[in-house]
Amino acid sequence: MYTIGIDLGGTNIVASVVDADYNIISTAKVKTNSPRSAESIFDDIAAISKQAVKDANITMADIHSVGLGTPGTVNSNGDIEYSNNLRFENVPAKQMLIDRLGVKDVFVANDANCAALGEAYAGCGNGCKNFVAVTLGTGVGSGIIIDGKIITGVNNAGGECGHTVIVMDGEPCSCGRKGCWEAYASASALIRETKEAMDENPDSAMHKIAEQEGKVTGKTAFDAMRLGDEAGCKVVDQYEKYIACGISNIINALQPEIICVGGGISAEGETLLAPVRKFVEDDRYSMNSSAQTKIVKAELGNDAGVIGAAILGRI
Amino acid sequence: MYTIGIDLGGTNIVASVVDADYNIISTAKVKTNSPRSAESIFDDIAAISKQAVKDANITMADIHSVGLGTPGTVNSNGDIEYSNNLRFENVPAKQMLIDRLGVKDVFVANDANCAALGEAYAGCGNGCKNFVAVTLGTGVGSGIIIDGKIITGVNNAGGECGHTVIVMDGEPCSCGRKGCWEAYASASALIRETKEAMDENPDSAMHKIAEQEGKVTGKTAFDAMRLGDEAGCKVVDQYEKYIACGISNIINALQPEIICVGGGISAEGETLLAPVRKFVEDDRYSMNSSAQTKIVKAELGNDAGVIGAAILGRI
Repeated sequence: MYTIGIDLGGTNIVASVVDADYNIISTAKVKTNSPRSAESIFDDIAAISKQAVKDANITMADIHSVGLGTPGTVNSNGDIEYSNNLRFENVPAKQMLIDRLGVKDVFVANDANCAALGEAYAGCGNGCKNFVAVTLGTGVGSGIIIDGKIITGVNNAGGECGHTVIVMDGEPCSCGRKGCWEAYASASALIRETKEAMDENPDSAMHKIAEQEGKVTGKTAFDAMRLGDEAGCKVVDQYEKYIACGISNIINALQPEIICVGGGISAEGETLLAPVRKFVEDDRYSMNSSAQTKIVKAELGNDAGVIGAAILGRI
Repeated sequence: MYTIGIDLGGTNIVASVVDADYNIISTAKVKTNSPRSAESIFDDIAAISKQAVKDANITMADIHSVGLGTPGTVNSNGDIEYSNNLRFENVPAKQMLIDRLGVKDVFVANDANCAALGEAYAGCGNGCKNFVAVTLGTGVGSGIIIDGKIITGVNNAGGECGHTVIVMDGEPCSCGRKGCWEAYASASALIRETKEAMDENPDSAMHKIAEQEGKVTGKTAFDAMRLGDEAGCKVVDQYEKYIACGISNIINALQPEIICVGGGISAEGETLLAPVRKFVEDDRYSMNSSAQTKIVKAELGNDAGVIGAAILGRI
């Protein structure tokens, strides 16, 4: 059985043919070149989907279902209600793909939710049914899988754990609230926290590292920590506590089998995750001494979205 | 179709026969008299269950299933792993009831989760499938219903939204963490907040109200607010913001159809809920202008647990 997964990103659009075991058989890509009309973008999506099918040496008749992951909010009709990234409003994505591909059904979901689905079924989740994916990038993205299905909620905007408050009246968040997890645990937040520590510590190794890199990044404090720099250690320690706070919240609310951590910062691997696990254990709701949630690194990288989209029609 | 619902509480044990439309047909009660042996308690549970069946003018053969709600942690075998209230550890509740009632199957769940299930199916949820119940009592209890089922998580301790942190490193919580929602939004927290405001405002009407009542309660600040007392208004306003913060977090994570608010403080009704709704709207993750979650008062009161327990075998 083959399905097509499509990842409609702000920069690239990727379409892959995926087999029954979640292996990517073929991939075709095109630049998004946003903003441009939905018609034009969906013409390109159809073209690369057909190309991927051809490259896989199969035909559209062999395709069980087509799934599309997109930024923004998707309703239950498969319309993209709103996407800030793509400047889309009420785009009937499902119907546009049915028309262009001549297939019977197309499934559309938010891209972060597709990535969570991909990791749950085909990545670090290894098929586990109760799973939360957290992405530490520019923001803190998340996708919640319960009983093998994405939690979209009544308005198809569920799963935004990054926008749960951990410091009431705290740092302003891009969303308009104050004190969201994202405002403390995203890569952008880490850069802000690093800069603040640099201002307070003119002798810190972080200054030299940032100078060599040409800018402060999400790696600056980690690199300083590896040099034994005290201020860098403090930044990383506090950042890991912020991550652990949000992860503990997810555990106490949902007790998923696995929480996977992805995004740029997750490249630190166990340097990040081992202390986070320790803080989560320390910080754990004391009645939950039996907590069993595993905290692991995301495995599929950029493929998570396209594989997750390919799974949409199979669950 | 009839089922038996049992609510094993710290003070009373209640067993009811419930019909297909979730109506309570008959009820029998006994004092818990805890601590005492599980054997003795389960003998009493069996006796009142049989009494309720007799009072309903039916026989055990008419009973479709039996459900038990209990404080503490219940595993998937129906054992009560741990209950601080009852001083139970690894009590095989399901098997003990099967043995005593001669029924084929018994379903056991945490009492807060049973109450959530009862409200979702038979109370303010009116059958809605994605539902969160929040109880503002001594603590902040909660139960999460997704797709009509209780979220118990990998270790059967899920649904503890009261123990998600909203003020990192904030007020100590009974659970061992700091800054949990419970430490700000429970009745106990409101009493603490009221006492702090009284210390700071010796002229507040709260002093006289507390004197008349003989103590500070969860009503003291609300009563002072109704008299136009400025310090009382401030306490209530801030308390409602704490409640709204946690509710907004639940909305952004799960976007349930309904969040119901129960427990002693919910007796304030719209005096409490109307401002909470307003704060949730103000505080809402701005991308979610389409948020549709309804915030309503719990309807079933003490019956929620027993009705929810009666539903356990039907879902």
